[in-house]
Formats: sequence, C-alpha cells, structure tokens
Amino acid sequence: MITVLAGGVGAARFLRGLLDVVPPADVTAVVNVGDDLVLHGLHISPDLDTVTYTLAGAINPDTGWGLSGETWQAMTSLEQYGGEAWFRLGDRDLGTHLFRTHRLAEGAPLSAVTAEIARAWGLGLRVLPASDDAVRTMVTIAGEGEVSFQEYFVGRQHAVPVTAVRFAGADAAKPAPGVIEAIRDADVVVIAPSNPIVSIGPVLSIPGVREALVAKRHRTVAVSPIVAGAALKGPADRMLRELGHEPSVVGVAGLYAEVATVLVVDDADLRLSADVAAAGMECVVVPTVMASPEIAAALARVTIASVDFER
Amino acid sequence: MITVLAGGVGAARFLRGLLDVVPPADVTAVVNVGDDLVLHGLHISPDLDTVTYTLAGAINPDTGWGLSGETWQAMTSLEQYGGEAWFRLGDRDLGTHLFRTHRLAEGAPLSAVTAEIARAWGLGLRVLPASDDAVRTMVTIAGEGEVSFQEYFVGRQHAVPVTAVRFAGADAAKPAPGVIEAIRDADVVVIAPSNPIVSIGPVLSIPGVREALVAKRHRTVAVSPIVAGAALKGPADRMLRELGHEPSVVGVAGLYAEVATVLVVDDADLRLSADVAAAGMECVVVPTVMASPEIAAALARVTIASVDFER
Repeated sequence: MITVLAGGVGAARFLRGLLDVVPPADVTAVVNVGDDLVLHGLHISPDLDTVTYTLAGAINPDTGWGLSGETWQAMTSLEQYGGEAWFRLGDRDLGTHLFRTHRLAEGAPLSAVTAEIARAWGLGLRVLPASDDAVRTMVTIAGEGEVSFQEYFVGRQHAVPVTAVRFAGADAAKPAPGVIEAIRDADVVVIAPSNPIVSIGPVLSIPGVREALVAKRHRTVAVSPIVAGAALKGPADRMLRELGHEPSVVGVAGLYAEVATVLVVDDADLRLSADVAAAGMECVVVPTVMASPEIAAALARVTIASVDFER
Repeated sequence: MITVLAGGVGAARFLRGLLDVVPPADVTAVVNVGDDLVLHGLHISPDLDTVTYTLAGAINPDTGWGLSGETWQAMTSLEQYGGEAWFRLGDRDLGTHLFRTHRLAEGAPLSAVTAEIARAWGLGLRVLPASDDAVRTMVTIAGEGEVSFQEYFVGRQHAVPVTAVRFAGADAAKPAPGVIEAIRDADVVVIAPSNPIVSIGPVLSIPGVREALVAKRHRTVAVSPIVAGAALKGPADRMLRELGHEPSVVGVAGLYAEVATVLVVDDADLRLSADVAAAGMECVVVPTVMASPEIAAALARVTIASVDFER
C-alpha cells in the first residue's frame, strides 16, 4: 500500500507515473485542501481537481489545470457584467464545482464528494482530501497584508514577495476519515514533488498528520520539487527564500528531515547529496523532471523502492 | 411614467411591446422573486432573467427562457457526476448566476445587482425585484406535500394538482427600494399577463404593495393571462381551478378587482365582458395573444390608454 501526500500539478504527474507501476487499488492520495476557495458561491478544490483530472486523462494540456475540450462561455458572460473573472472557471469545470457545492450543501463531507467525483471519472485509486474541514492557506504579501492563497497565486500570479504563511482553521480541523490510517498502514508514504510550504504544509498542519508521519518516518520518502535551485512550476523557490529557507534540495531536506527518511533529488543536484545527508535525510539521485510518462514511472519506481535501499 | 408588475415570459413580451410605444426611461418593471432559488450554491432569479434577456433581445427563442446561442457543457459535466440536472442552467446563463451570487455574497442587495445586470445589457428601463428579501413561493402538491415553486414548475413540469400556495418570508419582507414609489407616482400601473397566483401573488404578498396598489386602483389596469379559459403558457388555468377560482377572465377579475380598475381581455373572451364588469372591473377587449411585436405594441398602447377611456 502506497500513500502519497499531494499538492497539484507535480503531485498529479507523480501519481500518474505511480499508477503505471503499482495497482491503483494499492494507492491512496491525500490531497491538499489549503488552496480551496468559495467563489461566486461555488466550492472549488483546485488540487483535488488537478489530481482527479490528470489521472482521468482529462487535464487541459494547454494550461496544466482544468479540463481538456474546455469552453469559456460562463466566464465571457461574467465578464460582460464586470464580474470578477481573475479565477478562470471553464464551462465543463463548472459542472464539477456545481456538483461539489450541491453535495456539500446537502451535508455530504468533502471526502464523500471527492470519492463520488473520482468514481465518476473511473479512477481506481483512493483520493482523500486532507481534511473535511476548512483549512485555508493565507499568505501575507509584503506591504499589502494577508490574502487568500488563490488571490496570491492566481490574482497576483505569485509575483509578489511573501513574508508569512499560515493555515487558517487548521488547529480545529480533523484529518479526513482514512487519512491517519492510510499513513499508518502504508508500506511506503511518499511526499510528492509539491510546494513544501503551501501544498504539503497545509496537510502537515492538520493535528495528527505530522505525528502520524513522524511515527512512519522510516517508511516515508519525499521527492524534491526543487531542481537546480528552481521550482519547475510555481513559486516554491522564491517562497522558500522569502521565508528563510535555502531554495535548494538542502532547504527542502531541512523542512522534511523530521517526517521523512529519504529525499529524492534530480541528477542536476547530485553535487548536493552530501549536504542533504548533512541535513538529516538519505539522498537518492534520479531524473525527477517528469517530461514523459516513462520518466514519471521510473521516478515512481525508484521512489517507492528507496526506503528499502541498503545504505 | 408606467409601472408594470411582472412575472416571466408573458410579462417580458408585454414589456417588449410597451417599450415600442413609450420611452424606456418612463418604464419601471417590478418583477416577481417568488420563483427565485438557490441551487448548487447559486442564486437564480428566473423571472428577472427572463425579463432582462427578453428585453435585451437575447432570450433563447427555442425555449422562451435562458439565453440564445447557449451551450450546455456545465450541465453535461454535472450529469456525468449524477448531479441534479433537472433545472437546466446553460453556460452563458451561468455567468449571470455567478455574477449575482458573487455580488450578493459581497453584501449588495438584489435590487442593486439587478440594476447592474440590466445596465450591462444596455436596457433603458428600470428593472426592480419586488423585494431584496427572500420571498419564496411554496406549492402544496396533493398527496405529496409542500415543495418549492421550481420543484413544482420544472421538477414536476406543473403536471400535478395543487392544493395550496403560500409565500414563505413575505410577512417579513420589505418592498425593494423604489417599488412603492414606482406604484404611487405612476401615471398607469399595469399588472402584466402573468399567473395571478404564483407570479403576481408573491409581489402583492409583500407588506405595503397591495395597499399601494389599492390606493392606485383608479390608474391600475390588468391584462388577463387567461384566454378562452386557458393559460397561453404554464399552469395558471389549472391552478385557478384547483384553488377554487373560475379558470377564466371572470376568475381573474375576481382576483384583481380590489387592486385594478380595468381588465384587458382577448377578443376570444368578448362574450364574458359583462361578467367581468359584474365581478367589479371595467372590461377592455383587444387581441392579447402577442404572436408578433406589432400585436404586443398594440396591446401595450390600448392597455396604458385604457384607464383614461370614457365609460
């Protein structure tokens, strides 16, 4: 059994590779909900949708988010009214948000709705939100104040310096049903190549999750989202620096050493493997840039085997 | 100044005719909100939208509701999840609901949002919701119990017998800003050819509106939605019968005699004009079936002139 702590695009690609090398029924994805937002009355779960759409083969290849074959009639109409259209919602994608919002209003927990959506797409793995409760990543922008994650990430296109991040609601949140068990009972726990601060951070902030991971440290492996000092996508490198961490695999190792035993880093960071070890993690070096399904599958294979490597 | 109490399709067609004969700036439409619903988290105002879309020349000619050039990607997606898709929301139409829901969540009253939407469509008349507060038409179905108006109208396609109608929230609702003044200051008030029970009834149920209309009775004229004993659209005839009223222009006159002085009826009901008079209303006979813009304009012209007819 493999449990993967997941953010959005990087995690989704890793999971796609993983499903090429292990049976879907053996995989549980525990997905960040810190990016979730309520916009125009709709409950939107960007990371859950990116994981689901990617694994369904339905992700929009042009954007890396949303659905393929998408149309934008609702957004065009919203713009006609001068409505807030900075967060783009495609017409097909809106069907997902309508369904989720309706079911939540009926009293269904997010985990149940997520399972229904995954089932509708024919996915064989288990997709769990990290929590059924609201955990909201709040970002303090220098000289401006605190905004929601999406206002920072999409609204400001993450082009502004960050001075603090917090997870509103995390203290009172409970892990979704099955999350702690999925960590506890896994043969391997993988921290996917996602932003450690704003994708994995919210998952670890939910009381009980970090503790479960610490107890499982000997079977937990993280894949670095930082390659040669830069994030492949998004602001992870700048955010690490702005919040006082080294923007490198060594900085990532410093963040994960308490909860994981191995850090998988890209060939480009081979020369830093001793520094990763000095930061408290075993270092495995392998191509991590998932430019093809084959590379993603190879990365997944090495990653899940890495906790059993002789050292 | 002309003030029109309006439901959906029939009222929208009447208003379109009216705007051919008087300047838009002289016209205020006070529109039913009893049909409004919150579905999938979105605030939907069917009658307001039908009036706005019709007057904008953007109504879907195939359905009589929704927008022309519509697509249905969101509904197809919603259906993929097994979501509730009985209330059809087109992709372009969704933009309206997203905008309205967003603005309401920001604290804007429905009247302000309605004005913004009308302005975006370039409408010259004033469109007012009857109330900014929630007034919800609830329908009791024989042998089943009480359901919302849309569950009756769309969900059951109004093909089931009704034993009662009430307007939840009406007691505590206030007329939207301008409604009472629009009635009080009008040269003519028109009750549009809409369902008297479930389209005009909710408007009259809001405290102050019926009283304002009674005070204006001598300048108020109603157009019968019943022609030759049948509704042109919808269940008005059956509903009148089921709730103990005669399903004819005479039954309509009985409902409106307290608030209006003239009832405009179709040529087909010429033989009932004495009975209308006996029910307490002056009867004006003219073609009311708005099969063309010219007929609608002629109907509007006669209707607004009718309160000045010599008798």
